[in-house]
Amino acid sequence: MRILGIDPGTARMGYGIVEDAGAGRERAVEYGCLETPPDMRPELRLQALYRGLADLMARHRPDALAVEELFFGRNVTTAIHVGQARGVVLLAAADSGVPVREFTPMQVKMAVTGYGRADKAQVQRMVQALLGLPEIPKPDDAADALAVALAGLHSERLTARLGGLS
Amino acid sequence: MRILGIDPGTARMGYGIVEDAGAGRERAVEYGCLETPPDMRPELRLQALYRGLADLMARHRPDALAVEELFFGRNVTTAIHVGQARGVVLLAAADSGVPVREFTPMQVKMAVTGYGRADKAQVQRMVQALLGLPEIPKPDDAADALAVALAGLHSERLTARLGGLS
Repeated sequence: MRILGIDPGTARMGYGIVEDAGAGRERAVEYGCLETPPDMRPELRLQALYRGLADLMARHRPDALAVEELFFGRNVTTAIHVGQARGVVLLAAADSGVPVREFTPMQVKMAVTGYGRADKAQVQRMVQALLGLPEIPKPDDAADALAVALAGLHSERLTARLGGLS
Repeated sequence: MRILGIDPGTARMGYGIVEDAGAGRERAVEYGCLETPPDMRPELRLQALYRGLADLMARHRPDALAVEELFFGRNVTTAIHVGQARGVVLLAAADSGVPVREFTPMQVKMAVTGYGRADKAQVQRMVQALLGLPEIPKPDDAADALAVALAGLHSERLTARLGGLS
């Protein structure tokens, strides 16, 4: 089981791929950011992001793409820009035949820390610990993408176990 | 000169294609809405919209795609969803090699009515009059798309005239 987590943004799109490492553990396969220069035309930035995402899915063949569902506490202009990047993420997943799983921020925190109101620093430390990384992944966008990928992995595991029981 | 105007949305995406009709006049080539069913998965709705837009651009080969730049007076959740659709519009334009032109709502009103604070009904009546249509285009999304297409056409004409003078 391998999950691609995405933290959408136009200037910087965080990604993180995690997979089962046996014995209920998980490991990071690759993580980082797709970045686009601010002086590039918006439509070409989105095109570059689409291509980067399609390439990630072609190379890693994830079983699902995980992304946060909701969007809190920012302004409408920011929301439009994050929305544009998020639309390209969803389209790239559909075109690559990768199912999309959406999680609320609370579900991500629950999955990673066991506590729905954990703060950002707690989430990042747990991402580091769960994946056995030498340090907290940087930048934050990559750490956030790994967190939502872990939520996706835990959810798929649970679904598989429940399926096995039926 | 032919311009494709778009009013982005996921449930309903308005489109309108206008072109020069000679003697400073303009005509509508085609207009309407791309619609997607609410029970379809979000990523498949965006994929359907992308394909519809790519098809429109392949059939009509517009010189530019015009879309509103800013987004006022709605909430953050709406903004995310409009943003997702808008991201797919920009990506489809880039993939089709069609340049994107962005206009503020005030620029669209100025272009269509000569008055930057015109209300929606005035804009719709002027769209009908300028294009010599038998009635106001329905639904509103199609009328809004024709309005931004007209703004794009007027802007491209002015650019061409200024280029001719230099």
